[in-house]
Amino acid sequence: MHRVRVRVVEDALDANNTIARANREDFDRAGVTVVNLMSAPGAGKTTLLERALPGLDGVRAGVLEGDVQGSLDADRLAAVHVPVVQLNTGAGFGGECHLDANMVRSALAALPLDDIELLVVENVGNLVCPAEFRIGEDARVMISSVTEGEDKPLKYPLMFRACELVIVNKIDLLPHLDFDLDRFLYHLEAVHPGVEHLLVSARTGEGMDAFRHWLVQAAARAKEPV
Amino acid sequence: MHRVRVRVVEDALDANNTIARANREDFDRAGVTVVNLMSAPGAGKTTLLERALPGLDGVRAGVLEGDVQGSLDADRLAAVHVPVVQLNTGAGFGGECHLDANMVRSALAALPLDDIELLVVENVGNLVCPAEFRIGEDARVMISSVTEGEDKPLKYPLMFRACELVIVNKIDLLPHLDFDLDRFLYHLEAVHPGVEHLLVSARTGEGMDAFRHWLVQAAARAKEPV
Repeated sequence: MHRVRVRVVEDALDANNTIARANREDFDRAGVTVVNLMSAPGAGKTTLLERALPGLDGVRAGVLEGDVQGSLDADRLAAVHVPVVQLNTGAGFGGECHLDANMVRSALAALPLDDIELLVVENVGNLVCPAEFRIGEDARVMISSVTEGEDKPLKYPLMFRACELVIVNKIDLLPHLDFDLDRFLYHLEAVHPGVEHLLVSARTGEGMDAFRHWLVQAAARAKEPV
Repeated sequence: MHRVRVRVVEDALDANNTIARANREDFDRAGVTVVNLMSAPGAGKTTLLERALPGLDGVRAGVLEGDVQGSLDADRLAAVHVPVVQLNTGAGFGGECHLDANMVRSALAALPLDDIELLVVENVGNLVCPAEFRIGEDARVMISSVTEGEDKPLKYPLMFRACELVIVNKIDLLPHLDFDLDRFLYHLEAVHPGVEHLLVSARTGEGMDAFRHWLVQAAARAKEPV
């Protein structure tokens, strides 16, 4: 009997991952660390970046701003002198609810990669699909606002697993909410054991130094010789 | 010369709309008004329903609960004695970030249509894709939490246009936020002129009577003879 050995070539036909790898190579060549920042709408991604990026202790940062349409967030970041490129999923990409590697690739030429060491990609506000698409990033960070409730890690586990850092934002509102922080952290640990988290209020500045330190360290790590 | 007249059959191949119409006919036959409730994650859909549905003044209401996975929200609603059916997009539907007409159709047999006059379909928490899929509903309601910021109508215009009622929730937090309600309402009017809105705190109960009244009226309208 003749045996045919079927070799399973996993991932080989996944166009998104192929393009994400090409993005990553371009980012590595330019010495730019890339952070994919994800959250639900209104969790505070833009406010966090407005406050964090101008004070990064020598690390020059830029932003690729993903939105279905408009440039409201990009305008806010430009106002604090952060170089920013707007990427709209509505125009050429069918109004997608997430960024993918090909969209990011389309923006590469517009990015000032030679002038920055850190690029933050602000994804479309959504807790489902952005977690499914790598874009060529070094690290994924997600923000969960305490106003969203302590059950969110259990309801969107893929998102909470698909990141190296969870920022718990808007902690200045804790006295006014029925939000049990210990219970949230217990749920987070259940879906992503050992994941790092930071307690932050982008509004008051509490915890922001720790996030800036995390970004500076991430940029330094990526530039170490392999 | 022979002229060929090309007749454009719009929508004819849109399977979702075809199935949505079939759902709507089944709901109409059962005399059930269907409300599609949409919002970002954590805007307060479930809390709103927990507080509103048990006190509907003779209108018996049920819920079809849409989530990527789990049954946390359905369990909360069952606890306040609202008949509820859980529909997970993760199991058979590829982890979709929205409900569509076929998913709702798959749940029809499990719904107690003969025992209720009002069915609220709690969509997956997402401000993008749920707005693109009709499910056979009579009305679409979306919740925007004041914690999400006053720019949301401009960033997710399709969602804010695709509804007959906008509930502005968590107004008890207004004293603790940099949220300009007038500016939010100005943006809402810009993207969806004339749309009805209600100011609500599901937590404190403020404005909830107006929402209950809206639901009772919607149920009465749908049962009028055509």
